[in-house]
Amino acid sequence: MHKISDYQGYFLEYLSKKTITKEPKNLYAPISYILNLGGKRLRPTLVLMAADIFDGSYKEALDAALAVEVFHNFSLIHDDIMDDAPLRRGKETVHEKWDINTGILSGDAMLINAYQLFENYNGDTFKELAQLFTKTAIEVCEGQQYDIDFETRDDVTIAEYIKMIEYKTAVLVGAALKMGAIVAGATEQCRTSIYDFGRLLGLAFQLQDDYLDAFGNPETFGKQVGGDIIENKKTFLYLKALEFASKDEQKQLIGLFSLNPDDPSEKISTVKSLFESTGAKDVTRTEIEKYTQMAFAALDNLTISEDKKQLLRLFGETLMNRSV
Amino acid sequence: MHKISDYQGYFLEYLSKKTITKEPKNLYAPISYILNLGGKRLRPTLVLMAADIFDGSYKEALDAALAVEVFHNFSLIHDDIMDDAPLRRGKETVHEKWDINTGILSGDAMLINAYQLFENYNGDTFKELAQLFTKTAIEVCEGQQYDIDFETRDDVTIAEYIKMIEYKTAVLVGAALKMGAIVAGATEQCRTSIYDFGRLLGLAFQLQDDYLDAFGNPETFGKQVGGDIIENKKTFLYLKALEFASKDEQKQLIGLFSLNPDDPSEKISTVKSLFESTGAKDVTRTEIEKYTQMAFAALDNLTISEDKKQLLRLFGETLMNRSV
Repeated sequence: MHKISDYQGYFLEYLSKKTITKEPKNLYAPISYILNLGGKRLRPTLVLMAADIFDGSYKEALDAALAVEVFHNFSLIHDDIMDDAPLRRGKETVHEKWDINTGILSGDAMLINAYQLFENYNGDTFKELAQLFTKTAIEVCEGQQYDIDFETRDDVTIAEYIKMIEYKTAVLVGAALKMGAIVAGATEQCRTSIYDFGRLLGLAFQLQDDYLDAFGNPETFGKQVGGDIIENKKTFLYLKALEFASKDEQKQLIGLFSLNPDDPSEKISTVKSLFESTGAKDVTRTEIEKYTQMAFAALDNLTISEDKKQLLRLFGETLMNRSV
Repeated sequence: MHKISDYQGYFLEYLSKKTITKEPKNLYAPISYILNLGGKRLRPTLVLMAADIFDGSYKEALDAALAVEVFHNFSLIHDDIMDDAPLRRGKETVHEKWDINTGILSGDAMLINAYQLFENYNGDTFKELAQLFTKTAIEVCEGQQYDIDFETRDDVTIAEYIKMIEYKTAVLVGAALKMGAIVAGATEQCRTSIYDFGRLLGLAFQLQDDYLDAFGNPETFGKQVGGDIIENKKTFLYLKALEFASKDEQKQLIGLFSLNPDDPSEKISTVKSLFESTGAKDVTRTEIEKYTQMAFAALDNLTISEDKKQLLRLFGETLMNRSV
């Protein structure tokens, strides 16, 4: 077994070997561009780590890891168009640097290229990888659609919200780990449990992202604290606050979430007070803890050595150990 | 064996059974919409016909046929966004009826769904279908990119143009036929030859489309005659005319293709005269004939009965027998 940062390194080396800009340049240059914008490379790293954990070799998992990273970046290009986002990882988004048409078409080519990378696996493994990938990719699209739909709905339930973040972000974390397990030929039980570990950890991570957006440390949280409140995003905190609020507090919160003040600082502090006074803040922390524990519990079903489980726990703790 | 129109009917029946609008509705309603806009259903019909021709059963080929039609319609949605097209088959395009974001995301889901349909085939067949599909889909994207690039280039060669239409439209016709052959378990030689038949016929058809756009009968040609000339499209006719033209004629033609007059009738007739006087018209007819004959020649390598070859010839002749 290697350290997590080692796997990241192996992946980056493979990525740099594999991203060559073919003809037509206008199709492939944006693909090289987004794949080289950086990022934590969380998902491909998980594919490689899982392959080693289930007694395969991370080397055999490199193409599956690349497929997951290519898919993730495909979804970033298309999502950035839909969100009209100017920046991605501090650099111009693809549709800003080129144009929307280029973003659409290069994204399409990446989605197809992800499938192409699975062709390096033989019959059964190929089908298992492609099938898991397809299921996951469809869910990511559905999650994105739910997210868009929720913007204009005022009756979103907590269950619907959880399903949205599960589909939009958590299932790909589970799928990345399961792909490593598939490449390594792990048992069905191991595949299911490692998938659940990733999916539940992904859920915990996304809920924590909602939480930190309001209550995170501006020094260590990567994004602007209060960003979701400024954008009137119906996060878990908001939905829980609405659920727990008195009629008056509900009115106040809904009122605040219809405003876009030039200076949002007062709005942010009032909303945060409501998140606290209604009990939404505490409940969100509890939910994050619940999903984290459920993720760790999924590890009990794995028939692997204790030190390998320890590596997965370490990964989970590192991931969740932002300044809560 | 059945008649071509029978296969069309079998496909339509299967399509209507398979297009149900799932949740989230905003993702799946546009998919049902475009799949039910009509059209000749040429590609899926070819999948079914090929399966029967190689002693399989068209019934087993229905999912592959649907995958090809779903992919084709995915490419129509995304291409219509890129072309800013208001109409498709006389009805609103998806991005007009909904919006661009819906068009992007529903298209993405269709591309993934096409792969999903191959899951109904067992190990080897699944991989062969998915692999052919991936190769074809990448080529379609590259063809679309070349088409976009050509709009702003004035040094497009005939060879580049042929490659563009081959990728953008012809390979999918070949792939449709080859998929039927794969489902039927045809020999490698048969698969290659039927693919070439479709690809070459697709090329002939597309060249004929260029030809008919200028010289077709307005009564029978489906689109506006002169449309390519109005839009200054660098078709085969145009590129050949430039190649054969004198310096003066070149200047005239390039000049005409930089104009967008309110009444294009004079421009159209002058351009058509140049297409004739330079010899481009005759050469284009010769090329159409050449590719059609090459397509029919590919049938010689098929180890199937003469009456089955006859059915394929009949199909080719029907396809090409628009009023040239």
